[in-house]
Amino acid sequence: MVLVRQEIGDVLRDLRLQKAMTLRQVASRASVALGYLSEVERGQKEASSEILASVAEALDVPLSVVMHEVGDRLAVLEGAMLDAEVGIESVVPDTLPADLVAEFDADLAIR
Amino acid sequence: MVLVRQEIGDVLRDLRLQKAMTLRQVASRASVALGYLSEVERGQKEASSEILASVAEALDVPLSVVMHEVGDRLAVLEGAMLDAEVGIESVVPDTLPADLVAEFDADLAIR
Repeated sequence: MVLVRQEIGDVLRDLRLQKAMTLRQVASRASVALGYLSEVERGQKEASSEILASVAEALDVPLSVVMHEVGDRLAVLEGAMLDAEVGIESVVPDTLPADLVAEFDADLAIR
Repeated sequence: MVLVRQEIGDVLRDLRLQKAMTLRQVASRASVALGYLSEVERGQKEASSEILASVAEALDVPLSVVMHEVGDRLAVLEGAMLDAEVGIESVVPDTLPADLVAEFDADLAIR
């Protein structure tokens, strides 16, 4: 199961590292406990909407950008999951068994 | 303050109505209490990542689509907030007071 909090955490950490900010700096600017922010970044805690807004503001990134990035990453994961499913299906041989083919040919011959 | 849960709730409700499903149907398919789902849709409760995944699946909509739509709506709200800020600034007259203009002209004359 794909979890939104995992992607939100990854995006927040990546944005923080892009801005070369420490966990301590962001926690302080967002008035969030350092340990809590760390757990959010690791996808271990759900961030409330208020915390999310504060952290995005501390990172100087609009919330819409955070959510779009989360959507992008979820889409990649969903694509990967779909590929895995297709992979299972592709184990089914794409050539038909000989007896089925013979039956089909016989059917055509009748017409 | 723009709250993500408000937009998530709106998006989930709009998707449900698009699919002509009742709150009861989605709650049942997602194995979520009806009252809880109703509160999530109204932006009164934060949905956990697990609940979000279940509700998206019950609606047969990928989570990435839900999050992209949330991002889109947040972007509109952020734009509206920016417009409001610009609106406040535009109350400041764009013509300078006459005495300031005179001072500026005098300053130019010296050069």
